[in-house]
Amino acid sequence: MITPNMHYAELKDSYLFYNIAQKTKAYLEANPDKRLYRMGIGDVSLPLCDAVIQSLHEAVDDQANKERFHGYMPECGAPFLREAIANYYGQRGVTLSADEVFVSSGASDELGDILDLFDKKSTALVMEPAYPAYVDANVIAGRQICHLASGRENGFLPQPDPSIQADLLYICSPNNPTGAVFSKEQLKAWVDYANQNGAIILFDAAYEAFIEDSTLPHSIFEIEGARTCAIEICSLSKTAGFTGTRLGYTVIPKDLVRNGMNLNEMWVRNRTTKTNGVSYIIQKGGAAVFTPEGQKQIHQNIQVYKNNAKILMEVLDQAGIWYCGGKNAPYIWMECPNGMGSWEFFDLLLREIQVVGTPGEGFGACGEGYFRFSTFGSPEDTKEAARRLAKLLQK
Amino acid sequence: MITPNMHYAELKDSYLFYNIAQKTKAYLEANPDKRLYRMGIGDVSLPLCDAVIQSLHEAVDDQANKERFHGYMPECGAPFLREAIANYYGQRGVTLSADEVFVSSGASDELGDILDLFDKKSTALVMEPAYPAYVDANVIAGRQICHLASGRENGFLPQPDPSIQADLLYICSPNNPTGAVFSKEQLKAWVDYANQNGAIILFDAAYEAFIEDSTLPHSIFEIEGARTCAIEICSLSKTAGFTGTRLGYTVIPKDLVRNGMNLNEMWVRNRTTKTNGVSYIIQKGGAAVFTPEGQKQIHQNIQVYKNNAKILMEVLDQAGIWYCGGKNAPYIWMECPNGMGSWEFFDLLLREIQVVGTPGEGFGACGEGYFRFSTFGSPEDTKEAARRLAKLLQK
Repeated sequence: MITPNMHYAELKDSYLFYNIAQKTKAYLEANPDKRLYRMGIGDVSLPLCDAVIQSLHEAVDDQANKERFHGYMPECGAPFLREAIANYYGQRGVTLSADEVFVSSGASDELGDILDLFDKKSTALVMEPAYPAYVDANVIAGRQICHLASGRENGFLPQPDPSIQADLLYICSPNNPTGAVFSKEQLKAWVDYANQNGAIILFDAAYEAFIEDSTLPHSIFEIEGARTCAIEICSLSKTAGFTGTRLGYTVIPKDLVRNGMNLNEMWVRNRTTKTNGVSYIIQKGGAAVFTPEGQKQIHQNIQVYKNNAKILMEVLDQAGIWYCGGKNAPYIWMECPNGMGSWEFFDLLLREIQVVGTPGEGFGACGEGYFRFSTFGSPEDTKEAARRLAKLLQK
Repeated sequence: MITPNMHYAELKDSYLFYNIAQKTKAYLEANPDKRLYRMGIGDVSLPLCDAVIQSLHEAVDDQANKERFHGYMPECGAPFLREAIANYYGQRGVTLSADEVFVSSGASDELGDILDLFDKKSTALVMEPAYPAYVDANVIAGRQICHLASGRENGFLPQPDPSIQADLLYICSPNNPTGAVFSKEQLKAWVDYANQNGAIILFDAAYEAFIEDSTLPHSIFEIEGARTCAIEICSLSKTAGFTGTRLGYTVIPKDLVRNGMNLNEMWVRNRTTKTNGVSYIIQKGGAAVFTPEGQKQIHQNIQVYKNNAKILMEVLDQAGIWYCGGKNAPYIWMECPNGMGSWEFFDLLLREIQVVGTPGEGFGACGEGYFRFSTFGSPEDTKEAARRLAKLLQK
């Protein structure tokens, strides 16, 4: 008799976004005349930019042509895309070889798959509040999880201390959900901790393109010592609107070695065994993001979301509410007014002003009392939601 | 100090197709004037059919349009595609609900990922000769592997016997590499074995579209009892030329329960944790395969490959060489002439007639003395390779 992976039974039953969907559905059924302003889930609203669309069409035409048709792609990524991404890092002074860059179907896929490189007995450190899948993927693998709470006192940017005993350190910066960004000095402390303890950092850089403060690091590899202790996982989802088009990339330096095993070589072996690579069409579309024209166009789109953030930040500033994020990240993390609980505030916004956000508690216990707004909505919806929020907060 | 997954060190060093690539590269370097006829790796040569190309272009246009833009897709697959696939099964009398169908990035990706559903202590049965990734994915997971040899005496279609002690049974039919296809009666024996022993069959049906004998089963779910013991993994790679475009699907019946855990529900949880779904563009392209026009066009392409098979089979028939496959599968599995070893025959073909095939030994020890031809090459190359092979075998 086969035994299923019984760790699935340890997963918590409810999933944050599922609960939000159920609550909004129930509200709309009871109030069919109401229109909702959705600032909850982090999905983009702008279409793909012209450079990407053109490249996608060309790639589809290639697949129709006997001479230009592409069959099996290299499992670790098409050379043209691996090189384009390595060059992108080079522009920020981070030197990578193309075979340290792996093309993926997206950060969420890769954050789960990459765990295959580590022993099940290793302990994962999740700095909370955090993206729920970090925890769930490790529960499924049967790995022990160490939760590190953060809060307003450290700006939701926790630092290592000797009491932490963990092997696999999740760091997301700019952070989802808080929008907080680690400085170079703060990241250096984690890199030093990892090198001293033989730990490995999984650095989630999905929101790096939203950083505007030039002193803040976009990549962990801007920090000295990171090549011997870090893996960076990135995505075009938010950078270029690829949430439904799917493309990401992962950097595993060749200097990353533990117990005599080279993790770059292990990942090559994993990919050649477990995938046949990412769609040629999508990789061609992704490559257009890294052209000068593509970079210009995606930054025009990012500016639209940044304007949304500015409008919401002004409302919170005027109401005197504490928040972080918004400036260098597409998320704003606010303290709920009057000591309200995060689901209580969710219900209030839904009922009174038809604005849907994300309760902080869904990202870990220390998120209780906080609330996340995504800035990926349309400018029109964001303006109206901000107007309604300002009015509500005045009461 | 983190411990890597040390099972990677147990993987055998050389990979079949890597060795073939090295040998052919060395030959071409030594003989720069020669042209090779590649009948080795199973990559397709015909471009995508018109119906798929048109659908892909439309989907790209959707991603350029604010009103029709698609962000995050449902993690388990777009409803339009899950329904199209369920209908495809319905046409063969197999009743599935759409939420028993999961969209994937392809069979090779899914064959690795699906192992996440099972305890590491379960034993995997691999019927050899077999696709090398079956073994490697289980080695990485630290699972014990039971190798079941097959041979000419059973037509490379082994049957269960009470001595087999295994939990996870890999069955590939039509088979890669042998091209042999299980009859309904033969599959029923495996389904009964699995139900009696609480085992689960992983049924790889990637080549089902090549079956022309109407008595042979395309799906394990044509067999009574399979809904309580089988998962089916399928691909559009060979069916519709998606090797570089990437799309597949997996069927997990809701009746599949072990130790109180429902595997369909577990897989929903896995996908919602570990992916954000498959690209909208590619899913739209895939949906066109299941339209009447798409079906007509892909079967025209399949017929081209079937004609290739016919040409090769005629050569082997005339030379009096034993083989299986070819008729209901895109692979032909031949006995090497004069008791030659499979790498010996590989070297002979490369040196004497510049034809590249795949040595049977690469698919498991019992493949020694056999050789695989893929029929996915161009008709022109296949004709020339067949002409040269016929001449060589006459000697």
